[in-house]
Formats: sequence, C-alpha cells, structure tokens
Amino acid sequence: MAEKLEFWFEFASTYSYVAAEEIEEKAAAARIEVAWRPFLLGPIFAEQGWRDSPFNLYPAKGAYMWRDIERICQSKGIAWRRPSAFPRNGLLAARVATALDGAEKLAAFVRAVYRANFSDDLDISEPSVLKEILRGLSLDEEATLNRANDESVKRLLRARTDEAKSRGVFGAPSFFAKEELFWGSDRLELALKTLRE
Amino acid sequence: MAEKLEFWFEFASTYSYVAAEEIEEKAAAARIEVAWRPFLLGPIFAEQGWRDSPFNLYPAKGAYMWRDIERICQSKGIAWRRPSAFPRNGLLAARVATALDGAEKLAAFVRAVYRANFSDDLDISEPSVLKEILRGLSLDEEATLNRANDESVKRLLRARTDEAKSRGVFGAPSFFAKEELFWGSDRLELALKTLRE
Repeated sequence: MAEKLEFWFEFASTYSYVAAEEIEEKAAAARIEVAWRPFLLGPIFAEQGWRDSPFNLYPAKGAYMWRDIERICQSKGIAWRRPSAFPRNGLLAARVATALDGAEKLAAFVRAVYRANFSDDLDISEPSVLKEILRGLSLDEEATLNRANDESVKRLLRARTDEAKSRGVFGAPSFFAKEELFWGSDRLELALKTLRE
Repeated sequence: MAEKLEFWFEFASTYSYVAAEEIEEKAAAARIEVAWRPFLLGPIFAEQGWRDSPFNLYPAKGAYMWRDIERICQSKGIAWRRPSAFPRNGLLAARVATALDGAEKLAAFVRAVYRANFSDDLDISEPSVLKEILRGLSLDEEATLNRANDESVKRLLRARTDEAKSRGVFGAPSFFAKEELFWGSDRLELALKTLRE
C-alpha cells in the first residue's frame, strides 16, 4: 500500500468543497488512500492579521473567486449555489468530523456538510443542520454531537490546526504527499502523481 | 480569426514567468493570438495595503510559492534559479515592453527579461541588463530605452495598470478571454478553451 494522501480541509472554504467532491474518485483511480484532516483556518488567518476571509478583505480577489468557483463547478458537474452568508462558521462541523475520524462515514459526512453549505445554502454552524446530516447517514445524531463537544475532540482539532500551521499550511484545501505541501483544489492531481512516483 | 487572448503580466511575478514560457506554444496550438499586456502590480497591491510582495508579507505563502515554482518549472522543463532578490523592480522593463507594443520582438523581449530574472539571477531594474537583452534581439538599445522613458509610454503603462485594476485584476499573471478574467498560470488552458468555444 502506498503512502496516504493527506487532505486538509476547512468547511468554510469554497475550493475545499471542490476538492472534497473530487478526491475520492481520483484517489481511488490512483489506488491511493485518503487521510481526511479537518482543521480550522481561522487561527491561521488570525496570525496573518486577518479577522475575516481574504475573499471578503480583498474584494477583487473575492469577486474573482465567486466567478471562478461557479465556472469550475459547472465544468466539473458539481452542484453549486453561492451561499447567502460567507464564510460560515465550520467549527462544530469540524469537531464532528474530528469525532468521526476513522469512521466509515467520515467522507460522506464531509461531503454532505459541503453540499449543505455550497449547494443548499444551509447554515452549517447550526446543530440542527448537522443533526439532519448525521441522521441521513444513519448515525446517532445526539451521541455524535455529544462526542464532538467532548474536551478530547476539541483538543484534537486544536492540535490538528497547530500541526497544519507548523507544517506550512496557510490556506485550504491543502494536501500532503510524501511530506510535500500542495495548496489548492487544482493541485490534487499533482499531489496524487507525487505519491504514485 | 478568433478573439485574442489577453495576457497581463508583471515582470516581478514568478508565476507570470511560467505563463510567459508556455503561452506562445499553447496559444499557437489553439490557433489563438496573444495580446501582451505588461502592467504593474505595485499600485494594485498598494491599494490593498501591501507595500511588498504578499509572498514576503506572508512567509508561509512565500515558502510554499518558492517550492511550488521549483516543482512546476522542473515538471515543465523550464529553466529556474531562485533569484537572490525578490521582488525585483520591473518598472523599466515594463516601460520597454510597452514601448515595443505591437513590435515583432515584444514576446522575445518579455521572455528574455523573465529568464534574466528567474533563471540567470540578473537585476532587471538595471538599464545595462535590459540593454544587453535588446542588443541580443538586434534592437537599437539606446533608441528603445529612450522611447521607453518617453512621457507617452509612461502614460500608456499607467493607463494599462488602471485598466487592469478596473477590470478586476488583483494578481499576475491574469488572462482575459471573452472578457472573462482568469488568474494564475494554471488557468491558461481554461482561458484558451473559453476562446475556442
């Protein structure tokens, strides 16, 4: 078995959505396993002096991103609706994903949260939204949310975010292949190629 | 004849170098003509509050860029040496490129300046460096530099930079295809595809 592809994602990130939609099929085709790594961009951005998404702080960059994402989703056949709020707080969703770590349904949960945010325009910071997603995956929503709010899960998510920062992550999605960092959904193929070589 | 592909580039920009190395072959294969548009990122960055390259202001982003560019150049067979100074002031080179606008040798001049900066580690803000490049292209270096410093050329370059900003450009390289903006050397294919459709 080859090394895994590490997929570091933030639920508020539009380009992470694109990567989440593509990664399983592409990784399976390359016979590479994915290690899902939810983390938080907020603390990393805050260290750079940003209290908001750079797409809001830099309007020209933001305007471009919205058009670029629309084009990308259209060309790849990915469902897309511009959310009415951006960025949405992905903290609770990231805690749930961290709590589900290793579980069979983690990937399905991640994809469902992204679709809720970027295709159904639902507020993914709302426990009720996450509960419905968990129910749809036949997971015990109350038990999972309780576990997500456990101190050990909070600590693990903080440790993951610290790890991302210490390994040079500055945006999302980020991939690691053979300890090399790749940033952006459009670097997924190159990261997979690096692992196959 | 199809619409032209507008290629907006800044001489200090590493990813613009990659695009400059690739654009002629790829555009020719797609039977699309390139409109070369030198402009300055400095005034656009300054409006965002940046007095330096974001790759210097945000060290994690910068560290990634240097590795990413090295990988890209290696995989594409593009000569690369990390310059000992970054960003180098491309103002004079941009004025020369503006003065050469429409001339047969503009593309060759642009490529040679990029190679001087990013492969030969030469200071492209030095008139002597640009003169040698012009000489190598059998262009009259004194006459061309004089024209580059003419008020009309300075004005045209400023107008181009204003145009870029007003059309939503926030980084380099940028492409316009059917009035759609594409940002980054890795969007070149998509911009060409947009023109072919």
